[in-house]
Amino acid sequence: MKEDIAPVEEGGVTTPRGFLASGVACGIKAGGEKDLSLICSERAGRVVGLFTQNRVPAAPVVLSRRHAALGSGRAVVINSGNANACTGAAGMANATEMVNRVASGIGCPPEEVFVCSTGRIGTPLPMAKVRKGIDLALERLSPQGGKDAALGILTTDTYPKTMALRVSLGEQDLFLGGIAKGAGMIDPRLATMLCVVTTDADVSDESFTLAARRAAAESFNRISIDGDCSTNDTVLVFANGLARNRTLTPESGEFRLFQSALSLLMGRLARMIVEDGEGISKVVEILIQGASDEEDAERAARAVAHSLLVKCSWHGEDPNWGRILAAIGYSGASVDGNRVDIFYNGVQAVAAGVRARTPSRLVREAVRLPQFTILIDLGIGPGHCRLLTSDLTERYVRLNKGE
Amino acid sequence: MKEDIAPVEEGGVTTPRGFLASGVACGIKAGGEKDLSLICSERAGRVVGLFTQNRVPAAPVVLSRRHAALGSGRAVVINSGNANACTGAAGMANATEMVNRVASGIGCPPEEVFVCSTGRIGTPLPMAKVRKGIDLALERLSPQGGKDAALGILTTDTYPKTMALRVSLGEQDLFLGGIAKGAGMIDPRLATMLCVVTTDADVSDESFTLAARRAAAESFNRISIDGDCSTNDTVLVFANGLARNRTLTPESGEFRLFQSALSLLMGRLARMIVEDGEGISKVVEILIQGASDEEDAERAARAVAHSLLVKCSWHGEDPNWGRILAAIGYSGASVDGNRVDIFYNGVQAVAAGVRARTPSRLVREAVRLPQFTILIDLGIGPGHCRLLTSDLTERYVRLNKGE
Repeated sequence: MKEDIAPVEEGGVTTPRGFLASGVACGIKAGGEKDLSLICSERAGRVVGLFTQNRVPAAPVVLSRRHAALGSGRAVVINSGNANACTGAAGMANATEMVNRVASGIGCPPEEVFVCSTGRIGTPLPMAKVRKGIDLALERLSPQGGKDAALGILTTDTYPKTMALRVSLGEQDLFLGGIAKGAGMIDPRLATMLCVVTTDADVSDESFTLAARRAAAESFNRISIDGDCSTNDTVLVFANGLARNRTLTPESGEFRLFQSALSLLMGRLARMIVEDGEGISKVVEILIQGASDEEDAERAARAVAHSLLVKCSWHGEDPNWGRILAAIGYSGASVDGNRVDIFYNGVQAVAAGVRARTPSRLVREAVRLPQFTILIDLGIGPGHCRLLTSDLTERYVRLNKGE
Repeated sequence: MKEDIAPVEEGGVTTPRGFLASGVACGIKAGGEKDLSLICSERAGRVVGLFTQNRVPAAPVVLSRRHAALGSGRAVVINSGNANACTGAAGMANATEMVNRVASGIGCPPEEVFVCSTGRIGTPLPMAKVRKGIDLALERLSPQGGKDAALGILTTDTYPKTMALRVSLGEQDLFLGGIAKGAGMIDPRLATMLCVVTTDADVSDESFTLAARRAAAESFNRISIDGDCSTNDTVLVFANGLARNRTLTPESGEFRLFQSALSLLMGRLARMIVEDGEGISKVVEILIQGASDEEDAERAARAVAHSLLVKCSWHGEDPNWGRILAAIGYSGASVDGNRVDIFYNGVQAVAAGVRARTPSRLVREAVRLPQFTILIDLGIGPGHCRLLTSDLTERYVRLNKGE
């Protein structure tokens, strides 16, 4: 980490100046866990929203996307336990009501309020509970509420995902904070999870959008657990400008630092999501190089990351690079089987498409580790891609049989 | 089944006139099971070969594809337990040696001999064992060898897949016989399995190719277990003309009957492959209709069939149609979420994109059956597609962890 960027211990979305948050239990989840979070800035600021590319987006995605296009944001309300997806006109009415209730509670135009929902698809929201939850969350808004907000958005996650960074700009400090939830339905096509990032930076429209898109492209767009892409994935980044720094523009050196910090924050949150993927036992980094272009590199990486057979073999701690070659072969990427090299944590397993001379014991040792990197060099061109993924376990199947 | 087409009890690849077969154990598989099969016609005839679209094809695929282009075929040798894939120049040499040994054993040009291998990728073939196996298989060739041949090609299959049909053409009878293996790596893009079909029909080049392609398109191209597409998939169809019928041409009524029989045979073998899929507990037929065109219908069907979350929910006997809608949403097909209807065995679960009024108990009952059909009407256009798939179970993961 650059010394100008430092983590803030116990930090989260309320670490940046002027952000309040809360997380409450209002009964959407049967078990009494927190299931509704609110994050709110003291004043409106810029907002960037990145949304699922799924063509059956949930009502909250439709509404938040509309608000994000206006560019100004003050608050976001998030419920877990119910996705409010595939719920038709009633779903849109419920999402709108959530937004309106928050807007009147904090006293701002509804267009500055965003909404996210995560959980089971196709079930109507229990609005009586949601209303009570919003009222309680409004009451409890506080500068110490970041942790509760991180808890209120979880579904099958086993721990809250939160992080904050301080960026030193000479005499001034900026802060960035973030929370995320993931676990199931984690696919590379956009986020496939929820993430809210707050910052007190004063940043120009252009550079803010650029920084957020870049950071998401390298993080949430580069993780995959099961290849499914949800109806609800949303990344929202709020910047309220309360750090009163000189406005960051794409040309400034400070902007590069801000970009680094935002990329770092999203990268860490994305990694936490994979590490906490449903029932996983291995985190695997796929590095493709030597592809004919970037698109081909991504195709190859995704085919490997999505192959059930490859994922099962990782779980069994069996390198089984043959399955990786097979996956690349059907990925649609240009491949010459006789040019492919594969390395596990730097140990060569495949040389020019056939088994390398390395003792297979060494390759096997790499796969025994809880986290390892597979470098696949297609030997054709300059295209490369990095993707973070996981194995597939009996536990994943068990977890996803029911709800 | 049309009355002109009837199953032959205990039939297989040696049911058609002039075909001999054998299946032996030569030690490629550690457990002493049969692992090498030979199928041979008394005289050369036409052959159609359909091969994996994987860009890292195994050596036997490369060689057999070359021979298939010449159009004349006499025999095929198949080993299980080792895929001879990703084995480089040595792999090509070994495949060639297998072909040459069979050719000199039966006395025909090597170009009339085909070779298939199935099993683990990336391990050199144990050629000393293979040579002995081929010699033994040549010795044991017999008109009763169809059953042994069906056994020798299996990998993780739990039972042999074999079938034969008699086609009555007025005073004459034609026979068709087939064997297949499948189980893992079953994906729709072509076969992703091995299948050998024999027939004694006299059929013109043009109509033979047409019939084989059509039959495979509707059968082996329409099944999916795990979305992986192997390096070795091959369908070979041999026709030796010994029925001495009037040569079948695309215009003749007899050809339509032949086409029906071939489609039926491959369809049944394909269904057996899904039913015997690795660790599966449900066979699910996906019917897409109302897609904007055929390509979109196929995209939607494949997205549903490949979704881990959808497959897990079937295993848990949870209809969870929300996951199906999500999969269609990211399939790339044109979708209007407000127009989709979904039926489970005729029971409507989704009407115009939201939960139907049908009691969910009825939908749940359908999913409890070992086999059920999900009809998804996108409500946009005339495109439709039928795909046979399975659920995803803990057993699948366990089976694929190791070898």
